[in-house]
Amino acid sequence: MTADAVTQVLDHVDATLDAALDRLLTLLRVPSISTDPAFQADCDRAADALVDDLASLGFDAAKHPTPGHPMVVAQDDEGEGLHVLFYGHYDVQPVDPLSLWHRDPFDPQVEDTPAGRVIRGRGAADDKGQLMTFVEACRAWKAVHGRLPIKVSMFFEGEEESGSPSLVPYMKTHAEDLKADLALICDTGMFDPRTPAITTQLRGLAKLELVITAPDKDLHSGMYGGAARNPAHVLAKILADLHDDTGACTLEGFYDGVPELTNAQRAQWENLGFDAAGFLGGVGLSIPAGEQGRSVLEMIWSRPTCEVNGMTSGYTGAGFKTVLPSRASAKVSFRLVGTQDPQAVLAAMRKHVEARVPADCTAEILDANGAPATVMPIDNPAFEAARQALSDEWPRPAAFIGCGGSIPIAGYFQDILGMDSLLIGFGRDDDQIHSPNEKYDLESFHKGIRSWVRVLDALSRV
Amino acid sequence: MTADAVTQVLDHVDATLDAALDRLLTLLRVPSISTDPAFQADCDRAADALVDDLASLGFDAAKHPTPGHPMVVAQDDEGEGLHVLFYGHYDVQPVDPLSLWHRDPFDPQVEDTPAGRVIRGRGAADDKGQLMTFVEACRAWKAVHGRLPIKVSMFFEGEEESGSPSLVPYMKTHAEDLKADLALICDTGMFDPRTPAITTQLRGLAKLELVITAPDKDLHSGMYGGAARNPAHVLAKILADLHDDTGACTLEGFYDGVPELTNAQRAQWENLGFDAAGFLGGVGLSIPAGEQGRSVLEMIWSRPTCEVNGMTSGYTGAGFKTVLPSRASAKVSFRLVGTQDPQAVLAAMRKHVEARVPADCTAEILDANGAPATVMPIDNPAFEAARQALSDEWPRPAAFIGCGGSIPIAGYFQDILGMDSLLIGFGRDDDQIHSPNEKYDLESFHKGIRSWVRVLDALSRV
Repeated sequence: MTADAVTQVLDHVDATLDAALDRLLTLLRVPSISTDPAFQADCDRAADALVDDLASLGFDAAKHPTPGHPMVVAQDDEGEGLHVLFYGHYDVQPVDPLSLWHRDPFDPQVEDTPAGRVIRGRGAADDKGQLMTFVEACRAWKAVHGRLPIKVSMFFEGEEESGSPSLVPYMKTHAEDLKADLALICDTGMFDPRTPAITTQLRGLAKLELVITAPDKDLHSGMYGGAARNPAHVLAKILADLHDDTGACTLEGFYDGVPELTNAQRAQWENLGFDAAGFLGGVGLSIPAGEQGRSVLEMIWSRPTCEVNGMTSGYTGAGFKTVLPSRASAKVSFRLVGTQDPQAVLAAMRKHVEARVPADCTAEILDANGAPATVMPIDNPAFEAARQALSDEWPRPAAFIGCGGSIPIAGYFQDILGMDSLLIGFGRDDDQIHSPNEKYDLESFHKGIRSWVRVLDALSRV
Repeated sequence: MTADAVTQVLDHVDATLDAALDRLLTLLRVPSISTDPAFQADCDRAADALVDDLASLGFDAAKHPTPGHPMVVAQDDEGEGLHVLFYGHYDVQPVDPLSLWHRDPFDPQVEDTPAGRVIRGRGAADDKGQLMTFVEACRAWKAVHGRLPIKVSMFFEGEEESGSPSLVPYMKTHAEDLKADLALICDTGMFDPRTPAITTQLRGLAKLELVITAPDKDLHSGMYGGAARNPAHVLAKILADLHDDTGACTLEGFYDGVPELTNAQRAQWENLGFDAAGFLGGVGLSIPAGEQGRSVLEMIWSRPTCEVNGMTSGYTGAGFKTVLPSRASAKVSFRLVGTQDPQAVLAAMRKHVEARVPADCTAEILDANGAPATVMPIDNPAFEAARQALSDEWPRPAAFIGCGGSIPIAGYFQDILGMDSLLIGFGRDDDQIHSPNEKYDLESFHKGIRSWVRVLDALSRV
């Protein structure tokens, strides 16, 4: 397409932004929490809404059942040349603690804040807002030019926030329908509000729930305390022993397959001007908690982690109950890098637990699963084309960056469909995804749509 | 009174047991959970029911307001000689986890079990069933002989399960109304189902809630994990470090004031034939968890303890949420013996916490309070008289024993009113007080009433 042709689409995006925003707010009103069975019908409703919208744009769109929440798959073959598969997820995180939200998480609204206008609500950033940037870019191309500049398929799942149990089986069974030349994924962030990013290094994830049972029922601590094993003590010891005094994880073989940064990577990252004090200060902290001798950027992008995501035991209500609990449990996850093997990490965790559980207590390990880290080949020319397109839209040139979060889908696209993924997203560090008061900046939404308009054009010329 | 006069009262107890049981079931239906403000009106209702019942027996009974739940105080001056003050509490423990109850905790019923008939419901043993054994004994004395053999006052509080915040101020203000020659307390257990007991050594209690705050909001563990401090890790370390590898508590000065057993005590306890393996086996355990080199009886009666009663952090619902929590909290309590100073133990805990909290995190210590241990003077002749009376009722002679639980009221009676306390109760180890499916054996209730009939008589002859 000519530069003029692209400008026409960008102008259309600007002129129709309010309608695009209304469509996003409608989608955000659906409480599609995938991890909680109580919201199953809502997940289904979100999938239906996407199918209807894509069909209205001329996509061949359908909802496909799975043992869990349905997949949405849509194709548009009118474009030429390169074929891309855009991935997103329509499910959202749970909202608790609800008391910390300053508005109903599923009654989204645009709010004026000192830092600009934001779309407030669960899923605004993760991932409904991001997903809709791409859908709206396609809508604008079709509205102005009648068709897309390349072939576009879309693939939306509804289980991303609950471990994607149906994803791999579905991809394997439907590989032929999903296969394209390149995947596009919009579930990541900018480097900073002025600097767009393509994420090329993703940490993997291994996770499990650990349940320690000591006495077979809750006991009176006065009657049994001192003599009966307290599972909260056993759990505390297991969790405390996961890290040594230098912040390193103590699991046997944990650092096998963890690569050192190359000098080139280290130099590129040092040039980004990352504000480590500001990053920690933004959440009320000042002392990096990770391995001593590593930079904060290494801690969050290129080093593996071991984190307790939740734990509970005994009486946690108001007041005091001098109970000696029967059970104590924790949810633990590991972010993985390089060629760390998730199964080996989970096995080392099992061994760590077994060594610390007294013979008369039991330790159950539930829901253990994982996915390895992913590294994208940035010599694929689509990466540089997309980087240029993003650089045209934003104040500063786009960067190839790492990401602390795990987006296992990128690994699956490589392993199952043989596709590389362009991970482009417009989230910001302060979006509070997975937390109360999630938001997505109106600028992220608007310039995100414009960015995809440019990227679609750029990919038509690769 | 003559032996015949006592037999008449005992016969009346046997003949009217069903009516006594109905009265207890009515009281158990009131959900008087003192620790949860939602049940405030129910606590009030339980107090009113007791006032009405005692007034109907001819007591001068009244409900007295406090900043918390009301006190019930009643006097009957028709008896002669010794004046006793009977203490009990009408409040009960919370019921969660409700899912583990096999019936509504506040719809009590008599159930047939392989071990005999039991009264099932919250408060059946702790303390409504125990409290009513004494009230019913008084009712029987009055019904048969028109009056009690000694002077009796009663004093019931409604905050025992929530730390008794109003108790000491009330006792100090109303010392003249409450003062008697001896206190009777029915909130303890038998040594075993055939052996009644008078508890003469009570552990004290210090307790606190600890809240660690690291980041100022919940974070995405992918984005911040590794760099941001995880309060669950800080809390796990604090809790794990409370005990060393020998099971001893590591707090500085913790064992100051902890006496060794005298040879006489040790010999008496060894003669009790306590079944340590059965005690632990009854709750699914086999390895004593306390200090190495101490017997299980020492662990639960004469050694201090440090127990986590509850802890929580992050996401604890169904499924998985890779959140990096902002807060982690624990409820921790210490059972104290000898002359251990609760305030010194709490101060040592503060120091232990402060040494383990990074400079950019905060540790709050909430609701810290405590009461020291209590030892009764068993050379007071009322103790031997009561021991004989109990021995007449049960298959085996009554024992003077220790108790792992804390009953601070006994200490307050000593300190504020200068009274010793006879701690006589009919609970059993398997009553599941503070746990789901609390019960009180019908035999405990029936022979408990008969025991008090005999003790009242015995005290009239001291």
